[in-house]
Formats: sequence, C-alpha cells, structure tokens
Amino acid sequence: MNSRESTPLPSAIYEERLARVQATMQARDIDAVLLSVGHDLPYVVGYHAMPLERLTMLVVPREGAATLVIPRLEAPRVVEHPSVFSLLPWNETDDPVALVAQLVRGARNVAVGDQLWARFLVELLPLLPGVTYSRAVDVVGPLRMAKTPFEIEALQRAGAAADRVAAQLQAGEIPLIGRTEAQVSADISARLIAEGHDVVNFAIVAAGENAASPHHHPGARVIRAGEIVLCDFGGTMADYCSDITRCVFLGTPPSDVADAYAVLKEAQAASVASAVIGATCESVDAAARDIIAKAGFGEYFVHRTGHGIGMEAHEEPYIVAGNILPLAHGHAFSIEPGIYIPGRFGMRLEDIVVATADGPLPMNTASHDLVVLA
Amino acid sequence: MNSRESTPLPSAIYEERLARVQATMQARDIDAVLLSVGHDLPYVVGYHAMPLERLTMLVVPREGAATLVIPRLEAPRVVEHPSVFSLLPWNETDDPVALVAQLVRGARNVAVGDQLWARFLVELLPLLPGVTYSRAVDVVGPLRMAKTPFEIEALQRAGAAADRVAAQLQAGEIPLIGRTEAQVSADISARLIAEGHDVVNFAIVAAGENAASPHHHPGARVIRAGEIVLCDFGGTMADYCSDITRCVFLGTPPSDVADAYAVLKEAQAASVASAVIGATCESVDAAARDIIAKAGFGEYFVHRTGHGIGMEAHEEPYIVAGNILPLAHGHAFSIEPGIYIPGRFGMRLEDIVVATADGPLPMNTASHDLVVLA
Repeated sequence: MNSRESTPLPSAIYEERLARVQATMQARDIDAVLLSVGHDLPYVVGYHAMPLERLTMLVVPREGAATLVIPRLEAPRVVEHPSVFSLLPWNETDDPVALVAQLVRGARNVAVGDQLWARFLVELLPLLPGVTYSRAVDVVGPLRMAKTPFEIEALQRAGAAADRVAAQLQAGEIPLIGRTEAQVSADISARLIAEGHDVVNFAIVAAGENAASPHHHPGARVIRAGEIVLCDFGGTMADYCSDITRCVFLGTPPSDVADAYAVLKEAQAASVASAVIGATCESVDAAARDIIAKAGFGEYFVHRTGHGIGMEAHEEPYIVAGNILPLAHGHAFSIEPGIYIPGRFGMRLEDIVVATADGPLPMNTASHDLVVLA
Repeated sequence: MNSRESTPLPSAIYEERLARVQATMQARDIDAVLLSVGHDLPYVVGYHAMPLERLTMLVVPREGAATLVIPRLEAPRVVEHPSVFSLLPWNETDDPVALVAQLVRGARNVAVGDQLWARFLVELLPLLPGVTYSRAVDVVGPLRMAKTPFEIEALQRAGAAADRVAAQLQAGEIPLIGRTEAQVSADISARLIAEGHDVVNFAIVAAGENAASPHHHPGARVIRAGEIVLCDFGGTMADYCSDITRCVFLGTPPSDVADAYAVLKEAQAASVASAVIGATCESVDAAARDIIAKAGFGEYFVHRTGHGIGMEAHEEPYIVAGNILPLAHGHAFSIEPGIYIPGRFGMRLEDIVVATADGPLPMNTASHDLVVLA
C-alpha cells in the first residue's frame, strides 16, 4: 500500500513550485494539470497519494490555488498549505471523477500525471468531450529535473548511505557463498535501512549466469565460489533516492570476465566524464556505448546508459539514444552501462551523477573495481 | 520497484483463464483487452509487470493467443506459456505504445487495466482515433472475484498467518507502551514475514486519538498506558493477501470506549452473518451500519464496510452502499466497520470472509474482543 509521508517543508517552497508550474502551463497552453499517484504531487504540495482505488487528485488551474480532491478518510493525513491548495474531501458514495470533471469544466488542454491509474482517465474521457490530453511530466518534469542545492545535498546523503552498504559488500562483510540470492537481497535491504534509508526500492542480487538478466529477481539460486555477483540496490532517504550497482567476484576472475570488466569500467568512467553541462543525454549514452562496442561487446549492452533520479527512482532525464536534451546544472541521473553474456555472466557498474557548473559530481565513490573476495 | 514474482502454475490454468476472458470479451463486445501493472496480468498469464516507465503490456485479442509486449531486458524474467501468449520484446529505442497500437489496429472497443499508468493511455489516444475505452475490470474482475477452492485455501493460509500475529498482539507479546507507532509497525511487519508472508502490504499502528484517522501513517508518536491501540495489517503470501484489524486497550477502558466497542463488535458480527450467497454487497454494508447508527455513532463510521481481496489487497467486490451486486460462491472480502471520534479515539474490527454455499466462512478467528493489556 506504500503509505508514504514526505518530510514537511515550509509553505513558501510549495507556493514557489506552484507558481512555476502555472507559468509553464501558461507557456504551453495547458488549462489544467491533474496529479495523483506518483511524485509530481508530493513535489508540488508535499502529499503522497495512496495508490488505491479511492481517487486522490490535485487539480491545478492556470491561475489561483489548486484543489486536492481526496477521500474523506484520508484527509486527516494531509499537511495543509492553504496558500497553495484547498481540500475537497469526498464521501464513500460520491463520484470523485465527476468532482474532478466539474473542476476542470471548460478546459481544452489537460495534462495528467504519468502514474495516475488509467481507470480514472477512462472514466474521465466521456465526461470531458473534446479535451486534448498530454503528460504532466512536460509541465512538472523540467522543474523536478533541475535540482536545487537542498535537493543535491539530499541525493548526496542517500548516495553516501548506499555507498556504505557497497563498501560492506566489497569488504566481504556481507556473506555470499552458500547463501541464496534472496537471502543476500534481504541482508542488503536491512543494511540500507540501517544506514538511514526510509524504504528500500529494490535490491537485485544476481549470481553467475543470472547476472546476464539486467532486472533479475533474486531467488533460491545458491551463490557459489568462482562466480560473479551483481548487486544493484537503492532506496529512499528523506524523500530522495539512492541507486548503485557494484559487482564482486568470488575467487580469481577468469580472463574473459576480467577483460570485459576492464572495458566496462573504462566505459563507465568515460560516460561520467562526458556528463558536462551542455552535453546532450544521448552523447553521454554514446560515450559509454562506443567504448563497449569498439571492444566487441556492443550487442551485449542491451539497455540505455541511465535514468534521471530524485524523489523518484526513475525520472527524467533519460540517458538514451535519441534524447537530445542538453544537460543543465542540477540534472541528476544514473550512469550504468552493462555487459550481459546470456547463459554465462553479466556485469554492470553504476553511479549517480549530478551535472554542475564545476563538472560532473558523482554521488557514489565506492571502489569501481571488480573486487575479488576469497 | 516492487519486483514481484508469481508462484508458477501449469499452462492449463492460464489457458482456461484466457478462454474465459475471451468469452467475456465476446459477450461484452470488447475487441481488445490491454493489461499492464496490477494483478489482472499475473492472473491471466502468471507475470507481474514491473511498475516502471518501460511499458509491459499484454494485448488480448478476442480470439487466439495474446501478445506480451515487454522491455527486452525484462524478457528473461518471464515464465513462458506459448499456448497462452507470445513474447514481443522491444528495444530501448523502440516505441512500445506504437507496437501496442499496431496490435489492436481496427479495434473499436478497448478495455484497459485499472492500474496501467495513464501516460501510456495518453500516448495511445491519438494513435487509435475513434476507439471507445472501458475498464478491463469489467472483463477480468468477475473471473477474479469468484475464487476457486485453490484460491480460498490460499486466502485461508494467509489469513491464518495474520491471525498468528494478531494472537501475539493480544497475548501481550508485542511490546507497546513506550515504543513509537513506527517501531510497533516495523515489529508487526517482521512478524508477518516470519509467519510466512512474502511481502508486507501495510501495518497501520495508531494510538489514542490517532486511531480516529482510519488510514493513519504510523509515526513518532509514543504509545502510552491508558489508550487504545489500533493495528491493521496484512501482506501477500503465495500470491494471496491477508488483512486483519484488531484493537487492544492498555489498561481498563473507560466506559465510553467500552460501550462503543460493544456496538462495533455487534455490528461486525451482524455484517459477517449477513454475508450469505444472494445478499447484495450494500445489504452487508447496511447490516453493520444500521447497528452503529442506531447506537448514535452513525456520523463516526466514515468509510464503507469492506473491500474484496484476493491477489490484490483491494479488489472487487466492494461492500458499500450503492453496490447491488449479489454475493456468489467464492466472493472474498473484508468486513471492517469502524467508529472514529476525532481528537479522542478510534476503533475498527476486521475479518476477511468468503461467501460459500455453507454460509459466510471467516478467514480470521483471532479474538474479537477489545483485549485488555496491562
């Protein structure tokens, strides 16, 4: 049910964010923005909608205060900011979608939050004939993408906490041989919490040939000597996310693994170095991909180089071919190339990086080597 | 990131479910069903979509096998059932929404899963002009609602595991006085896992006046002697959910609390007893509500009496005024009336119940009393 609470901020911060949202609406000719489940809502008003069949929705008009349509039984959860939004609680037998339709009546262009449940949009469609829909990420995304100094510090604190767990892994403090991937995943999760995260978002542990599946689900597979172990984990700490990937080898890596890792490490470092202000997202992707391709592993790097990060584990900007967005100060994103040889092994190396006027600022500094554990 | 895996079932079960979905599509004149995040997808093909910006979508035509559009890097996670669906992996620079639009071209009536991220529907709208959208819950929901004997046993096992934690609470084995709500919530969560749950969905702990907020987020509030503590918790165990609420009192309850609880207990029992096959959902709601209203607490029972439960913590049928659906064999739902006095105290009493030919079958049997702990 993921009942989250945001760290409370002063109303002035939300007032300023709402004003910037409305200025963008004006510029893009958007009449109403509808925010529900997801992180646009807490960014704008400090409240997380519960991901339930009962609709919570912030209706943002182009001018004036917003309205938070909310189940009456959840209204007591809200920290109110009357200068930013008013509450419109609905009762169990009310139709909240009809309430939203009334609030946006007359709108022609409506932008909706990415993670709104489609059922509510399906119900809204016939109530608002003639409306053109777009994604609210076009309005809120650019604001969320450029992190303030306060937000960069929060990412640094979360990154440092994840680094401490990575260091424990690399120091051999997390037992691996003889345990299942699932057990190690649970261990890493507990350590993320112990190091200060409020919630664990994921803890991928993939051994040997399983590491060739980038989104492997840690299971009953027992980890053995003589194989690579890929660990990709992160959580949320005071509203901001961490995300790091490190690999260790249980014994002396064979030359094919060592050679591939050397390529991976060079590619990841080159991509980080390329992430300067003004570089396009796709050029940062290419910086890693070109090195991997030149070494003959191009077909084994099957995903984009990275994703943005902030309040959400994955957000804009995406570091992927075709994204010509130039990096700006405060953009925060992962750089995580990988090499995946099906049936044999896989590897990935990931840091979070913030683009700044002083160059790329990594949030993670744990060793980038393929650490050998006996 | 909630990377879930289903317990694998034989292909024949999914073949039968797909056939029933397609028969319902025929009957309701639905040309295509689109399933993504949520539990309709694992019900039909045994795979959980990752809730990410990369689209996973099962396209179900009215006849023939379905197609699972999936990010290439997640394809290795899928347990394949070739008689039920084929895989259509997409690459990082492909447009998965365009792939889906191609698969459903020519469709007039398209039903989409409730929890699909709205961004994908927003992107689909201009690609499929003239299509009328509806909710896939109209197609898949009736199938999921009527639990098979296998599913009822799974709910019983999950319910028994939650009951064991409730019994620990009622026996005073979970320390309360002097701990924060958040600490007790973490303790209950750990016990749910220890008793066999794969994941904890929620563990509400609300003390004293906080119990008057039905969806209270457990926080830094320290629990003291002389107050009520409301605990509402549940998780998922082998794909099926538990959900139970019990209250304890730390000392001798004052007469206003004891009197209200007596009303609540009578109302909950009456509602359970009324949940026979053929009774409407709203009549089961009324059975509890009438008793609470007659005792003068009507305005303090601010939510519906219950929600369906199965693979999902909240699903159809909803036990709420206005729902005239008659209960049928295998319908599973919570019965959880509450009384909430703002600023003073709150209480709720909840069991999961399955409607059967032999009458209402409770999944929870932990004591229904307001247990007094010294």
